[in-house]
Amino acid sequence: MITVLRLGHRARRDHRVTTHCALVSRAFGADAFVFSGDRDSSIILSVDDVVKRWGGPFEISYVPSWRTWLNKQKAKIVHLTMYGQELNKAIPCIRKVKGDLILIVGGEKVPREVYEKADFNVSVTLQPHSEVAGIAVFLDHYFKGKELVKKFKKPEIKVIPQEEGKKVVKL
Amino acid sequence: MITVLRLGHRARRDHRVTTHCALVSRAFGADAFVFSGDRDSSIILSVDDVVKRWGGPFEISYVPSWRTWLNKQKAKIVHLTMYGQELNKAIPCIRKVKGDLILIVGGEKVPREVYEKADFNVSVTLQPHSEVAGIAVFLDHYFKGKELVKKFKKPEIKVIPQEEGKKVVKL
Repeated sequence: MITVLRLGHRARRDHRVTTHCALVSRAFGADAFVFSGDRDSSIILSVDDVVKRWGGPFEISYVPSWRTWLNKQKAKIVHLTMYGQELNKAIPCIRKVKGDLILIVGGEKVPREVYEKADFNVSVTLQPHSEVAGIAVFLDHYFKGKELVKKFKKPEIKVIPQEEGKKVVKL
Repeated sequence: MITVLRLGHRARRDHRVTTHCALVSRAFGADAFVFSGDRDSSIILSVDDVVKRWGGPFEISYVPSWRTWLNKQKAKIVHLTMYGQELNKAIPCIRKVKGDLILIVGGEKVPREVYEKADFNVSVTLQPHSEVAGIAVFLDHYFKGKELVKKFKKPEIKVIPQEEGKKVVKL
């Protein structure tokens, strides 16, 4: 089981980026998404709506204290940070982990404690870019691209791939 | 040369997502980023600042009409859309293209014309997620992961990967 933890959500500024983080977590094969910072029920509603229509399972929840939540978890922790080890070097070790994984992405300023708690601090490119892309590319490498064709359970609709135009079918 | 074209930018709503699209384009190996929609010089300033500090070359610019701009280009066009062909099927054909590529990502509603103009309509996962992740994963597959260790020219600073903590050196 892979849970993505997004730290330090700010309701106004981060609304769309955190929503994208959650949708990317689902689309690229994570099982759950937890965020801390500002409480923001509209993100939960919109992600739950995607799960209802496009399939699951995928859980999203808000926790007031990421620290309290994290201290209860037994999973190994991967922290995505541009300062960490290179993805290609880290991923073979991470793939050997048995049991659950927590993938942490930060907000504006990540406390030093997160670097220390992490079993793996991992950088996707060593360049400044986006936590949205970090989650996607990490999971894509972790699953070796198999998540690209993941089948979700109980979708109401699905896309039929087209060379041109759009085709969505109700199930 | 790969240019990413972002359609329909809305200054208030899309500010951070478009900035992330531009930074991801740079970090994952594209050469340039063009956006249309609302004029928004703060995005250009912040991406230019990243290029100055972290290295280039990478060009960002705003065009008032994507249609006028696109009609002048001779590159093959890849349009990222959740309704397109699956990434794994499309990418071998796209890699055979000689010459320049334009990678289009849409805003809220993409005109049918874009689907028609595109040489390839490509879907990264067939699920709803994020244009930021779409660009990153497309480029990562296109470059087969080689962009993850891309060296940029004339950086002022760079990250030295660490298992814990941060190390940035001035060059």
